[in-house]
Amino acid sequence: MTSTAAPRRVLWTHATLATFAGERDWGLVNDGALLVEGEQLRWAGPAAELPAELRAGVADTHDLGGALVTPGLIDCHTHLVYGGERSAEFELRLQGATYEEIARAGGGIRSTVAATRAAGEAELHALAVPRARALMAEGLTTLEVKSGYGLSLADEAKCLRVARQLAALGLTVRTTCLGAHALPPEFEGRQDEYVDAVCGWLPELQRQGLVDAVDVFCERIAFTPAQTRRVFEAARALGLPVKLHAEQLSDQGGAALAAEFGALSCDHLEWLSEDGIAAMARAGTVAVLLPGAFYFLRETKLPPVQALRDAGVPIALATDHNPGSSPGLSLLLMLNMACTFFRMTPEEALRGLTVNAARALGLPDRGRLVAGLRADFCIWNAAHPRELAYWFGRNPLRQVVVGGRPRA
Amino acid sequence: MTSTAAPRRVLWTHATLATFAGERDWGLVNDGALLVEGEQLRWAGPAAELPAELRAGVADTHDLGGALVTPGLIDCHTHLVYGGERSAEFELRLQGATYEEIARAGGGIRSTVAATRAAGEAELHALAVPRARALMAEGLTTLEVKSGYGLSLADEAKCLRVARQLAALGLTVRTTCLGAHALPPEFEGRQDEYVDAVCGWLPELQRQGLVDAVDVFCERIAFTPAQTRRVFEAARALGLPVKLHAEQLSDQGGAALAAEFGALSCDHLEWLSEDGIAAMARAGTVAVLLPGAFYFLRETKLPPVQALRDAGVPIALATDHNPGSSPGLSLLLMLNMACTFFRMTPEEALRGLTVNAARALGLPDRGRLVAGLRADFCIWNAAHPRELAYWFGRNPLRQVVVGGRPRA
Ligand SMILES: [Zn+2]
Ligand SMILES: [Zn+2]
Repeated sequence: MTSTAAPRRVLWTHATLATFAGERDWGLVNDGALLVEGEQLRWAGPAAELPAELRAGVADTHDLGGALVTPGLIDCHTHLVYGGERSAEFELRLQGATYEEIARAGGGIRSTVAATRAAGEAELHALAVPRARALMAEGLTTLEVKSGYGLSLADEAKCLRVARQLAALGLTVRTTCLGAHALPPEFEGRQDEYVDAVCGWLPELQRQGLVDAVDVFCERIAFTPAQTRRVFEAARALGLPVKLHAEQLSDQGGAALAAEFGALSCDHLEWLSEDGIAAMARAGTVAVLLPGAFYFLRETKLPPVQALRDAGVPIALATDHNPGSSPGLSLLLMLNMACTFFRMTPEEALRGLTVNAARALGLPDRGRLVAGLRADFCIWNAAHPRELAYWFGRNPLRQVVVGGRPRA
Repeated sequence: MTSTAAPRRVLWTHATLATFAGERDWGLVNDGALLVEGEQLRWAGPAAELPAELRAGVADTHDLGGALVTPGLIDCHTHLVYGGERSAEFELRLQGATYEEIARAGGGIRSTVAATRAAGEAELHALAVPRARALMAEGLTTLEVKSGYGLSLADEAKCLRVARQLAALGLTVRTTCLGAHALPPEFEGRQDEYVDAVCGWLPELQRQGLVDAVDVFCERIAFTPAQTRRVFEAARALGLPVKLHAEQLSDQGGAALAAEFGALSCDHLEWLSEDGIAAMARAGTVAVLLPGAFYFLRETKLPPVQALRDAGVPIALATDHNPGSSPGLSLLLMLNMACTFFRMTPEEALRGLTVNAARALGLPDRGRLVAGLRADFCIWNAAHPRELAYWFGRNPLRQVVVGGRPRA
């Protein structure tokens, strides 16, 4: 009889590790090894330095033949659960239809809200699974999903339940309540009443275990800073962390407001001001840049990457997957677009899908290849991590390990 | 005993067909059927209209359950065979290195020429196969590959042989000699002599069966219109069709020159003039637009799509895959980028990867779902062909049929 008390130890050898162990550089290790114990990394570093007492207890060894290993990829901003899709609207617009004509043809966010409300949980799940699998095919191990197309307590809860169910695919799911995403038609002209309603849903959603964070779309076409503040106060009263869709189309001072509430992240940020940057730096708030939406909306105003660097604000990237402004499902493409559009370096870009994406979700247990963190990592057919940002529309993923176990 | 004289008939039913049978529109057929006989389409249309005598001889039937079927995708402009990759240069540039610093670090096209010359045929093949497979994973059935990184008779021939070998993967390969791509270092200061050399290689390359067409990079930083003309004359003397890298960075009048030689296509075309458009329209030359290079080079000058439409010039799309200016390997992303950047409609974009890409290669036997053409088609998990252009970084391909046979 062997003891079952100690978790099983598995050794991965002959890896090129991009550990992101420090605050700068890849943390590259040639001829590296990873020792996994149960769900955690017990040790990571140059194989020659692996302590003998750790090597002694290894039950299984995988030789990676020099392959690149990075932390598992984290998509920290998606709207993945929704009914329908909007390809007809996309086509109409390219055929020259005006926004009014599209609205009359049933397009826009209201069409997604209607389709989401009409769909049952099973249907929403069936639609969300292939979207999640597309992200997983490129190394996703942690996924954030926002509500915001239900816009009623029952429909928001339905979407958040579907998001939670995606964890069964073999990934970590974090759910964010974005009730304050858009005004539902039944609240037309009663925006403040709708904000009251959203604040009122939070305790119930929290009671059901459906909310890890609270988000608001603060913009001229959405909710005001004053309304945002009310939602944030409701979140704070429940001990829920906040995030913000901030300064995407104009400078609303949203970032500074969010920083005041110690926000995990402010997202989009094309119109972010110097004051906003300073407030984020003080609060330790992560800047989540969304190159897919920048691309799809043909934006020209660039987020202030150099000023964020100078201020020491951590920068994360995400797909912002949603049917209206970013119907993309490739994290690797976000790396290339962050480099191409935003002039981030490949190292900054990949840090943005690992270390800093984990920070944006308040998950200090992952995002680097460091002892004590979760054993979520990706094995790539590549010699150097910069290749992941250089190629586009190509998937060199070989294998994903989640919580210490190879994903089938 | 059964007769083996007649090719086997296979019926595909319950398909949504995007046939591109006419000059406009998708040619959509709901509840469509495809009858394949050997390598060809014997019949395509509404299942209810399939003649009884054709149905009678069917050996096998596949029910597609409503899935979308399109012609197989054609990438009519790539530089897929080359040594090395240029991710280090990509990273250096994003770290702020100047072009001079990159050149001193061994970057630029000369680094690819050196790596290509140093590589043996087996190594080049091993590098090209995963690139081709990445394209095939999204439905590629016909691939054009240009030489142009060998820049000597032996090295150009080597690359074209490797390209030919890719056909064994299960696709049609068309090879284009682009000897006049860049000036090799040993011809420094002797550009006209190099053009003479290229012209001199063509008969030998043709004798070896390695050239389907001849291309030139006509640009201030490459070859002049007069030099282009000499290469085209050498091609014409051998009965080889021509293509041209034209008006990418400036208006050289290359399109009009190419049209004078009845060029199959002019490619890039951001700076194409009205005269060039008129000449292409008269000659029946296809305009091949390359959104991947437009994106990666952060170009802002748009190709004249509306003027091309107005003149009736067929528009094709391609990846332009190459290690310097377009390291992308996704045809579906080219659909989305053509819509997003160039404001093409989804139908124009997909026509550009099927019907018009076939024209750009001089292959009238493919690109539509029409009786008598090759049975190259893709089966997609999608309800409408516009979805292929709407999503990005997502691959809804279910199955590919090449020459009548499902690809394993
Ligand atoms: Zn968003
Ligand atoms: Zn090219």
